[in-house]
Amino acid sequence: MTAVPYLALIASVLALLLAYYFAKVVLRADQGTDLMREIGGAIREGAMAFLRREYRWVSVFVAAMFVLLLIVPIADNFTPRLAASFAYLMGAVLSSVAGFIGMRIATAANTRTANAAREGAAKALPLAFKGGAVMGFSVAGLALLGISINYLLWVKWLGVDQAFQVVAAFGLGASSIALFARIGGGIYTKAADVGGDLVGKVEAGIPEDDPRNPATIADAVGDNVGDVAGMGADLFESYAGSIVAPVVLASLLVPVFLDGDSLAGNFGDAEGLLMYPILIGALGMIASIIGALFVRGREGRSLSGQLHTGQYIAMALTVVFAIVGTLVLFSGNPTFGGYELSAPIFLAFTIIVGLLGGWAIGFTSEYFTSEHFKPVKGIAQQSETGPATVTIEGIAQGKLSTLPAVVLVVAMIGLSYLFGGMAFGDAGNEIGLYGVALAAIGMLAVTGVIVAVDAYGPIADNAGGIAEMAELPPEVRGVTDSLDSLGNTTAAVAKGFAVGSAAVTALALFKSFSLTAGDQVLLDINDTAVTIGLFLGAMTPFIFAALTMSSVGRAAQAMIVEVRRQFAEIPGLREGEPGVKPDSRRCVDISTQAALREMLLPGGLAVVLPLVIGFIDVNALGGFLAGAVVTGFLIAIYMANSGGAWDNAKKYIEAGAHGGKGTDAHAAAVVGDTIGDPFKDTSGPAMNILIKVMTIVSLVFVPAFL
Amino acid sequence: MTAVPYLALIASVLALLLAYYFAKVVLRADQGTDLMREIGGAIREGAMAFLRREYRWVSVFVAAMFVLLLIVPIADNFTPRLAASFAYLMGAVLSSVAGFIGMRIATAANTRTANAAREGAAKALPLAFKGGAVMGFSVAGLALLGISINYLLWVKWLGVDQAFQVVAAFGLGASSIALFARIGGGIYTKAADVGGDLVGKVEAGIPEDDPRNPATIADAVGDNVGDVAGMGADLFESYAGSIVAPVVLASLLVPVFLDGDSLAGNFGDAEGLLMYPILIGALGMIASIIGALFVRGREGRSLSGQLHTGQYIAMALTVVFAIVGTLVLFSGNPTFGGYELSAPIFLAFTIIVGLLGGWAIGFTSEYFTSEHFKPVKGIAQQSETGPATVTIEGIAQGKLSTLPAVVLVVAMIGLSYLFGGMAFGDAGNEIGLYGVALAAIGMLAVTGVIVAVDAYGPIADNAGGIAEMAELPPEVRGVTDSLDSLGNTTAAVAKGFAVGSAAVTALALFKSFSLTAGDQVLLDINDTAVTIGLFLGAMTPFIFAALTMSSVGRAAQAMIVEVRRQFAEIPGLREGEPGVKPDSRRCVDISTQAALREMLLPGGLAVVLPLVIGFIDVNALGGFLAGAVVTGFLIAIYMANSGGAWDNAKKYIEAGAHGGKGTDAHAAAVVGDTIGDPFKDTSGPAMNILIKVMTIVSLVFVPAFL
Repeated sequence: MTAVPYLALIASVLALLLAYYFAKVVLRADQGTDLMREIGGAIREGAMAFLRREYRWVSVFVAAMFVLLLIVPIADNFTPRLAASFAYLMGAVLSSVAGFIGMRIATAANTRTANAAREGAAKALPLAFKGGAVMGFSVAGLALLGISINYLLWVKWLGVDQAFQVVAAFGLGASSIALFARIGGGIYTKAADVGGDLVGKVEAGIPEDDPRNPATIADAVGDNVGDVAGMGADLFESYAGSIVAPVVLASLLVPVFLDGDSLAGNFGDAEGLLMYPILIGALGMIASIIGALFVRGREGRSLSGQLHTGQYIAMALTVVFAIVGTLVLFSGNPTFGGYELSAPIFLAFTIIVGLLGGWAIGFTSEYFTSEHFKPVKGIAQQSETGPATVTIEGIAQGKLSTLPAVVLVVAMIGLSYLFGGMAFGDAGNEIGLYGVALAAIGMLAVTGVIVAVDAYGPIADNAGGIAEMAELPPEVRGVTDSLDSLGNTTAAVAKGFAVGSAAVTALALFKSFSLTAGDQVLLDINDTAVTIGLFLGAMTPFIFAALTMSSVGRAAQAMIVEVRRQFAEIPGLREGEPGVKPDSRRCVDISTQAALREMLLPGGLAVVLPLVIGFIDVNALGGFLAGAVVTGFLIAIYMANSGGAWDNAKKYIEAGAHGGKGTDAHAAAVVGDTIGDPFKDTSGPAMNILIKVMTIVSLVFVPAFL
Repeated sequence: MTAVPYLALIASVLALLLAYYFAKVVLRADQGTDLMREIGGAIREGAMAFLRREYRWVSVFVAAMFVLLLIVPIADNFTPRLAASFAYLMGAVLSSVAGFIGMRIATAANTRTANAAREGAAKALPLAFKGGAVMGFSVAGLALLGISINYLLWVKWLGVDQAFQVVAAFGLGASSIALFARIGGGIYTKAADVGGDLVGKVEAGIPEDDPRNPATIADAVGDNVGDVAGMGADLFESYAGSIVAPVVLASLLVPVFLDGDSLAGNFGDAEGLLMYPILIGALGMIASIIGALFVRGREGRSLSGQLHTGQYIAMALTVVFAIVGTLVLFSGNPTFGGYELSAPIFLAFTIIVGLLGGWAIGFTSEYFTSEHFKPVKGIAQQSETGPATVTIEGIAQGKLSTLPAVVLVVAMIGLSYLFGGMAFGDAGNEIGLYGVALAAIGMLAVTGVIVAVDAYGPIADNAGGIAEMAELPPEVRGVTDSLDSLGNTTAAVAKGFAVGSAAVTALALFKSFSLTAGDQVLLDINDTAVTIGLFLGAMTPFIFAALTMSSVGRAAQAMIVEVRRQFAEIPGLREGEPGVKPDSRRCVDISTQAALREMLLPGGLAVVLPLVIGFIDVNALGGFLAGAVVTGFLIAIYMANSGGAWDNAKKYIEAGAHGGKGTDAHAAAVVGDTIGDPFKDTSGPAMNILIKVMTIVSLVFVPAFL
């Protein structure tokens, strides 16, 4: 049993080695023509500059939180507070490092993918995937590494008091980075995209990614900043959170239900329950590594098949490993204090429930956002009567898509609660909450592959942009387009995992929050403080959506003004005279500054609100978190799916439906797509991190509130 | 004290006499030219035909519920079940009668207002107001009449067991009518409006309300069906609910907190607490009658001033009456069992909190939807970059507008809870819930005037349409436009009262639900069943919005097809050749059928969902209701304000900003306005009734669930 953290260490080192190997492969590939090299350099420079500036701003925030953790009485004495501060810092630093590595390689993979596309999709696909996999395995590897080290350090070696509070602080560190990376990245990418498109496509009448448009480079930078770095930080946090949550929850449930020792230290034979989430993390990592190695470019096989193979292999192996690992770890029906783990196999079932649930939520996202199904076709149909009906139908379908997602999440919660109880021969007992927390790890066990496949999308998208800007032959653009459209589908599935796991993880963290508070909170909905909290909490995602959408609007306006200025003031730019170049750097600057400025208010609110409410009334904070988690989940699903559906409705029309490009129907669909941009890439994804950051802040600080 | 129900009877008879007098005044006025008479006749015929068909469909539902109340064990023996069935039927019938009378007069006042507008606004304003006031005082009068009779019948004279369950059934009857009237009316009005506008204004290039457009009559019918009948039924239910809720809550709190007798019958000296809400209803009614008599047409005074005078007088008198009435009813600090009502004046304060809170929520709606303030100006500004940015900003502002509304509701809940406790010298005690329930009556005490002012809007709107269709001189249209634009502002305030009271009333009903369930429910958010319920409940308003928006889309499509067909097949119609008339009747039929068909699914769900969940698990139902009330309130505010803001942004541009009519900016704003149509007039308002119908169904049926 003591081998588990070391197994996790080994698995994470293997993941990092795989990332290193993939990075080498990517960097060895040819960058193509001088112009491609130049464009790629500009994108990389813009993206890395943004990341550096973002980290500089966020480091102030991290420093403040570090001090706060030291001075606020979140633990009875100074040692665990010091430990929590360092765990927090480690979470923040490791997440930043993962983001840095992932971005560096993603912005190298884009030109190389574009160049490889000249030799066909079979050459380009594995390169784009490997570029994404560097992010994927840096994220998963560093997160698991951090958790293992923290576990060994505080729980095993030093035996710090309230050690699991300290482990939770690691998750809080990861959240801090994710919060700002998601919001800042989301604003950046859509400011450039919306602003650039509105002047370029609509006013100047030049195609997307045209080198004449001054915002084109900023748009490509935005794909990396938002979809690579933002998403990576988000999933670093989700993955870390999904392991931290059941560890912390188990540490709290053990004394309550299993007659174990106090929170202070020795869990005796109950330690298996604390180890189990880490074991699943390690096994899922190994499964993901094997899966990733199966993604190769083969001529004649479908691209989506090749990409999905890796994912399915990783998922199937995780199931097998989880069953075997569970039986080995809990061989011989161990007892925990007065309780017997009579049927450990049911714990493995909760993992499987999570894995299948995440996949199923992803599938419902695909149903609502793919042009092969009724919702997107219906939205495209509404384009015949103009932008208003397109918008109405897109909003309606996005809202409707919350139905299957909620039903699946509710089924996952119910089943894993049941299985969690059955593992102890006591279905319906509150010990079943442990099963709910495990479901979240089940969902994210294959994070390495999920992020790899997701980060593949923006790399392929960038490659297409570079092919366009570098004026490569149209067939190259055809290859990158086929890679890109595949990326849209895989992104829907990854979003399903991200949002589903956010809800379940937040729930597990919330349960830990109230267990930590113990008898000192009364979370009865009838309590007036809880009611008030519920209203305020449910409101927060609405305000968050409003703030982020307005931010995109403002930033896009600034971009529009600049692009218009350049078209007006630079002679020959619009006409595309040879040698005339736009001042892309200024557009990159505008996006960077706008994103950094605009991320502060929503990001700050997410941390400050639970602190303020918690210090006023912990019952109200309980209601607040419940309201925020539930509504945040709904809005996340709704906005992501509305946005995705509009995007694909436009593509469906561009592929020829309802008259194709250039018709009024197409113009209407473009409006829907533009409205959907901040929905799916800014406000929607920001909800995942919002609900988790608020619960984890509450969990870490709850001893101080009481 | 025993005089209170009789006072309420007298007040409601006075209200009905006022309605009768106003109806006479309206009907005596001149209908104008033959063409006006003809157009007015067509509108009235369409509206009344819809109402009849709606009532026919709903009567099946009402009959089913009647039987359900008889056979489901909602009470221990048959007598209270029979009583509940009859109370239910009375609620349904009285609400229908109020709708019928109000519609009949509103559809008479429209032509007469148009005719009076030929002599100026000072002649037209009082006529439109009186037309609306017939609806207002029919609604308030019949609701208060029904409650008084029910109270006397079941509580005083027959002394039925579980009498307050029976009184709640009256509210359920009112809800049943409101549910379908709101949804059906909302779909009707926007199907006609969106469908008619998209073909007429956008495709055929003819102005709004042009007699050539076959959908124009249907549009005018829709204003009556949605904004008069739908809104009237909604406020009948709100008003009845706001009085029923504290009566029921008091009957449940008395035995729990005040050592009173059982639920079975005799409340002894505690009866004052049960009477108090009815007293406030009676006093508010008298204040409203006096206020309404102050609305007269005077030359040279501002229209809005004249309309608001009545409202403010009613509000001020209610405050005075409430203070005096409270001191008289509770003179000499009476004791209720073991409790002393030590400071009854605090109960009057809860009424004032409600009244001011409702007004303040209305004011925030005005801030977010009036062109005089920043939000609408910002949306208009975004029209410069096209429909997408208009839409994004409108959604962002609507979501942002939930902030002040939630803060106000939360403050109202907190303050009235505090005051409720302080009245008994025990601030913070759960008895304070009584105060929360009272706040809702405070808000709706002046329902008569609120509905009058709100129903004034569609009458003025209709008058404008008739002036246009009857080809009256442009200055007449100018007068009706000035009346109409005033109606938009007053509607925002009325919506504030409606949605604010919906949240607080639903909350009071929810508390009654859990008190009725007693120890048999555990509404701890940590309970897994409650969590699951919370997710499902919060999802329901999203699904409700999706269904109603899609319904509008489908119905509008049917309308578009028909209008296109008429323009194509009727020679000379588009050109406006003399004597060529569109087939308006078919458009009216299409709207009617679509509205009736489309209202069934969402309406049915609202009743069936709580029943199904309640029979499975009452704890889950508790979570479900809490989730639905909170999210429903947020979505109601968001959709109403986004819709209103887009509408006024368009009007702001039409008044000359950003280039005025005919510019791209105007076209963009029209898209926003069309998107906003189902937001503000279908889905948004349906939320109010959704959350109340679900809580009241749960309250009435909870004994059967256990």
